Amino acid sequence: MIPSNHVVIVAGGSGTRMGTDTPKQFLKINGKPILMHTIEKFLFISPQPNIVLVLPQNQIKIWEKLCEEHFFFHNIDIVAGGNTRFQSVKNGLSKIPSNNSLVAIHDGVRPFISVDVITRCFQTAEIHESAIPVIKPVESVRIIDNGSSKPFDRNNVFLVQTPQVFKSKLIKECYSKPEQNFFTDDASVFEYYGYQVTTVEGNRENIKITTPFDLLIANALINKKQNS
Amino acid sequence: MIPSNHVVIVAGGSGTRMGTDTPKQFLKINGKPILMHTIEKFLFISPQPNIVLVLPQNQIKIWEKLCEEHFFFHNIDIVAGGNTRFQSVKNGLSKIPSNNSLVAIHDGVRPFISVDVITRCFQTAEIHESAIPVIKPVESVRIIDNGSSKPFDRNNVFLVQTPQVFKSKLIKECYSKPEQNFFTDDASVFEYYGYQVTTVEGNRENIKITTPFDLLIANALINKKQNS
Repeated sequence: MIPSNHVVIVAGGSGTRMGTDTPKQFLKINGKPILMHTIEKFLFISPQPNIVLVLPQNQIKIWEKLCEEHFFFHNIDIVAGGNTRFQSVKNGLSKIPSNNSLVAIHDGVRPFISVDVITRCFQTAEIHESAIPVIKPVESVRIIDNGSSKPFDRNNVFLVQTPQVFKSKLIKECYSKPEQNFFTDDASVFEYYGYQVTTVEGNRENIKITTPFDLLIANALINKKQNS
Repeated sequence: MIPSNHVVIVAGGSGTRMGTDTPKQFLKINGKPILMHTIEKFLFISPQPNIVLVLPQNQIKIWEKLCEEHFFFHNIDIVAGGNTRFQSVKNGLSKIPSNNSLVAIHDGVRPFISVDVITRCFQTAEIHESAIPVIKPVESVRIIDNGSSKPFDRNNVFLVQTPQVFKSKLIKECYSKPEQNFFTDDASVFEYYGYQVTTVEGNRENIKITTPFDLLIANALINKKQNS
């Protein structure tokens, strides 16, 4: 990763689905908030990263306190999020120059992204202007069509992860346009405003930690890494 | 579950994707082969179950030895599998009467099926002649169309699990017909031969254990259950 590239980490979650008062990105695995594990993956790629962290306004002070407690001192821009994910990403992107550099937009609660996949996304986006990591489902798939479900070849289905990497000036241009209620991720914004999305292979462990079951998996993964 | 209902448990796996010589259904979680955990879920539903276990011919002796070692003595019919999953299920169904009873066909490496979901499948199939458990993906979804991928509403996507429950005489009729290479599960056979499939909500923990990552999750789940 060349130093001029950027990372926007979006951590807008509450603890609702987790059944806790603590926002999920602040829950600890191996004694450290999930969000720090996530950020460390990008620090591993580049020791002088350009990271923008998007947090809900009312969580910024809590985060700063957590950073002190964990001696987590890195040169990270913090930006307040908006009312929707779109608004939060837009706020994050406002800190990034509109040029030919790349920007990776990543979920704060995906600490198990592999360094290989981050690198692959940046390398692919360098050539194709975008790259998003996807995996195939392991289950049989059905899709709903006219109210009833029918079988669908799982080889033609992708489950989409992050980081989603784009040429900065293009994704900033897209985010300057109106939000649509069917946007689910940055790729859908990029595509809706006329650009093509390139997929690369993701890593299965790159789960989004949103439920107690995910947290259980996260703890198992981190314990395994510690022991190996 | 009324006693006249049936269960066919299909355990045809090798250890290939797991990177072990031990077939995955015999790998241990909490000191006991995965397949025994799976069978116990159905014993919990009915103390006098009609279970048919389908195993590759060369694994039957190993299984019998494991049962002795683990004092796992239940009245279970064992049938040798075939060259494909279709053939294995067909062999299992050959032990089931062709009548109005129900039969649940379940993967041997899904020990975390919840008792609630098994019950829901039987109850629904009693009314609708079939029931299969499905969950929605947590990720954004894309589908491949004409060589490139496009966004697809994840609310219209189902990931299919087992047990898949059917009226015995109907599923036996379907399995008496020719195998097609696009069959992926029992629902696809049932549907191809003219019947309708009803979906019910599955449980997310009901993973199919096929990779070391799945085994890691399985161990975490079983440890949690032990501690709670």
